[in-house]
Amino acid sequence: MPSREIDVRTLAEHLGGEARGPETTVVSLAAPDRAQPGSVVVAVDGTALERALARSPSVVVVPVELDVPHEAPCAVVTVANARLAFARLSALFDDRPAPSPGVHPTAVVASGASLGPDVSIGPLAVVEDGAQIGAGSIVGPQCTIGEGARLGRACRLHAAVTLYDGVHLGDRVRLHSGCVIGADGFGYASGPAGAVKIHHLAGVVVEDDVEIGAGTAVDRGTVDPTRVGARSKIDNLCQIGHNTRIGRDCLIAAMAGIGGSVTLEDGVVLGGYVAVADHVSIHAGARVAGRSGVTKDIPAGETWAGFPAQPYRRWVRGLYLHGKLERMWRAVRERDDER
Amino acid sequence: MPSREIDVRTLAEHLGGEARGPETTVVSLAAPDRAQPGSVVVAVDGTALERALARSPSVVVVPVELDVPHEAPCAVVTVANARLAFARLSALFDDRPAPSPGVHPTAVVASGASLGPDVSIGPLAVVEDGAQIGAGSIVGPQCTIGEGARLGRACRLHAAVTLYDGVHLGDRVRLHSGCVIGADGFGYASGPAGAVKIHHLAGVVVEDDVEIGAGTAVDRGTVDPTRVGARSKIDNLCQIGHNTRIGRDCLIAAMAGIGGSVTLEDGVVLGGYVAVADHVSIHAGARVAGRSGVTKDIPAGETWAGFPAQPYRRWVRGLYLHGKLERMWRAVRERDDER
Amino acid sequence: MPSREIDVRTLAEHLGGEARGPETTVVSLAAPDRAQPGSVVVAVDGTALERALARSPSVVVVPVELDVPHEAPCAVVTVANARLAFARLSALFDDRPAPSPGVHPTAVVASGASLGPDVSIGPLAVVEDGAQIGAGSIVGPQCTIGEGARLGRACRLHAAVTLYDGVHLGDRVRLHSGCVIGADGFGYASGPAGAVKIHHLAGVVVEDDVEIGAGTAVDRGTVDPTRVGARSKIDNLCQIGHNTRIGRDCLIAAMAGIGGSVTLEDGVVLGGYVAVADHVSIHAGARVAGRSGVTKDIPAGETWAGFPAQPYRRWVRGLYLHGKLERMWRAVRERDDER
Repeated sequence: MPSREIDVRTLAEHLGGEARGPETTVVSLAAPDRAQPGSVVVAVDGTALERALARSPSVVVVPVELDVPHEAPCAVVTVANARLAFARLSALFDDRPAPSPGVHPTAVVASGASLGPDVSIGPLAVVEDGAQIGAGSIVGPQCTIGEGARLGRACRLHAAVTLYDGVHLGDRVRLHSGCVIGADGFGYASGPAGAVKIHHLAGVVVEDDVEIGAGTAVDRGTVDPTRVGARSKIDNLCQIGHNTRIGRDCLIAAMAGIGGSVTLEDGVVLGGYVAVADHVSIHAGARVAGRSGVTKDIPAGETWAGFPAQPYRRWVRGLYLHGKLERMWRAVRERDDER
Repeated sequence: MPSREIDVRTLAEHLGGEARGPETTVVSLAAPDRAQPGSVVVAVDGTALERALARSPSVVVVPVELDVPHEAPCAVVTVANARLAFARLSALFDDRPAPSPGVHPTAVVASGASLGPDVSIGPLAVVEDGAQIGAGSIVGPQCTIGEGARLGRACRLHAAVTLYDGVHLGDRVRLHSGCVIGADGFGYASGPAGAVKIHHLAGVVVEDDVEIGAGTAVDRGTVDPTRVGARSKIDNLCQIGHNTRIGRDCLIAAMAGIGGSVTLEDGVVLGGYVAVADHVSIHAGARVAGRSGVTKDIPAGETWAGFPAQPYRRWVRGLYLHGKLERMWRAVRERDDER
Repeated sequence: MPSREIDVRTLAEHLGGEARGPETTVVSLAAPDRAQPGSVVVAVDGTALERALARSPSVVVVPVELDVPHEAPCAVVTVANARLAFARLSALFDDRPAPSPGVHPTAVVASGASLGPDVSIGPLAVVEDGAQIGAGSIVGPQCTIGEGARLGRACRLHAAVTLYDGVHLGDRVRLHSGCVIGADGFGYASGPAGAVKIHHLAGVVVEDDVEIGAGTAVDRGTVDPTRVGARSKIDNLCQIGHNTRIGRDCLIAAMAGIGGSVTLEDGVVLGGYVAVADHVSIHAGARVAGRSGVTKDIPAGETWAGFPAQPYRRWVRGLYLHGKLERMWRAVRERDDER
């Protein structure tokens, strides 16, 4: 990051914040306990601020409500939302490599595939017949874009992503390595000689601005596509079952597993390892704590936890009561003794 | 799907069902609430039938025991098993792309590999020395077939499947993208300078008609191979430990994790996220509910649930009693007050 | 394995054990119930020994404290640690294929990459600009080594491993197929128009002698790298979150999921499916039972279990009390009847 030098006024402007203190420049973004001269640090609270100031960063970014000692020798930028400021700074200092447009000579692009302007197809990628890659999209090394799959504009597929045939991505979709979109759902009928496979004829639709983590699998639909709504984010190693519909602005943490034909409405948040049974609906804005198992519908806006999942307060009460088991058991024995 | 047009008599014959009503043809398979003229719909119950009829499909397929209103303007096919009929229809309407036989010029096939007739090796696949690919098998793009690995006839490996050396697949095995068969088991001995790796000398044997989902890992055996029995189906992102033996006709849902040296006898069904501890045996036909953790052997034919897993009825009773904790706790406090 | 023939004195010397009985040679390592003439068997206890002897192996390796019948017709090697002896034997009999040094002509190695002596780059692997591969390291087929990534000496990457840019591996690191090191962490800020991505500027540091299983994902750090300490072993399909620091000599079983900014000190052992919440510290030598969910710090050396995780004895007591619920509930009803 040393090549990028940004002065504090530009930085404040970029963050929509207010700068005060000395004119200075920074060349890197640092964590509070790795602060150093030349770096900007975001301190979300007093503890982080104190740790940072002890190491003399050039700039600290703090929420407006946080007091910064007047003797602080660094520039200060106050912002309304420190976490958002951190996100924006992380983008500003991101000089990670991005491939240039062009088709690598070792990529295998079928003659019937269609590439928009400024597309980058990495080494040893495969783009099959009928696939369409929108303007500015980047297909990383070792990816496979199945027959008839479509990418919108400015998508970024890191190395070794697999899209099966008939998968449609919107614009600015980001997929991490090892994720598999559009594999067959797990559906069989009992036949006279064992399980009979249900063929999955539909694909997957992933809307704009979705990001999906490493190793996550989103299965294709049986006769209608599986869907992931705009701006939803799915972490690593999640399983999204066939025919499931995920709304917009959902957040799904790592190792979550969503069954088949599930509905997640807009703004649903699932913690890590959350399991959702087939055919369940989780209504808009509901939140589910990590490691929960959801076996029935969750009303809009509620927070649930546990297995079987239940309203959060009830779950917490259950934990409390569980902690009283020793006392309850003693009462039973005392009663036996008394009789 | 619009190119395939099937008349209702052919369709009934294909399903082993009885047709009645108007002569007509269909070009697609639809879900009940996406039915339209030209489509066939499978309605498993009255609700689905009502939804379908409201949208005028050309043909409805129903179980024999379901009454269809006489005024229904569509053709009706009655079948013994509606889900099986759906599976068969899904195959009939499956016109998803399948690669043609031949070795793609960018595939890297070792001179010591052996390919049967009508084999298809996709772009950028690697087939190492001593590997054998049986007649009609399809190796997708970006797959690696390790040294000495063997595929039977008519296998289908989707893109980016990895077989380590010494893995043997039977006939008609289907593997989805990202699955890894034959990686080293997780075995170490404590040595004077940290963990000492146990080398895994044996491979994996996957019998006929097995299907394994995206991202699933089946570890190789230490001195004898890990085994997956005929017709068993394993969903996405499952872990099958070293030396484990899975019987025939097992069904293993997504995110299940089976430890090392586990035995699953024939016909075992595991729900999603089921964890099975090392060395446990689950006997023939037993079923384990999702999110259970199996720590000891399960007798044949039983259904178990929970963690530690226990017979299903006992688990349900435990949930019921858990729901009474509030009442129990109140009783203890009342008793304290009375004393 | 039939080409390697080892006499019992050499074998005893290799194991640091004592040989007695007939001079003989062996050509393979077998499990006790697969023993046969020409094989060596490790019998960890009397049961295994009895099973082995019934099948006439040429050599049995046993712990010194185990009595072997004098009439046993095979050679006997006594060792201090039978499991360690097994690990060493497994290495001795490992004749699995290993690639020869050299760059496969189909590999795509950027001109700005740097390869040490005796490096092997497999078919269709990609090594990007600025990457450095240390002496004797093996990069398997279909791997991608991102820009500026570094491998130390004698690493082994099996097929289809993905290293993002800026990932650093020490010496003798072994990575299994499908594992993804350095994907973006799951971090977003709430912005006015939905989630705003936090860019992850730092990489991952994996120290010497680490082994990571198939399909496991280790996310990159935000501004400082995620770390995996020397000699730690991570099983298949685990998730290691951004900014997490794993110490030395840790063992992490399959399907474990570690959140972001977690600290695992040296020698921590996590069972399968263990979930660790963000920002938690597990102190040196602590052990966590399978399927636990760790929500707060664990002191050094302790064993915890359950969800929320708690000291093991307390968890076991909780299970015991849970088993008394029926009795407690009956007491409440009896009391109601009496009143």
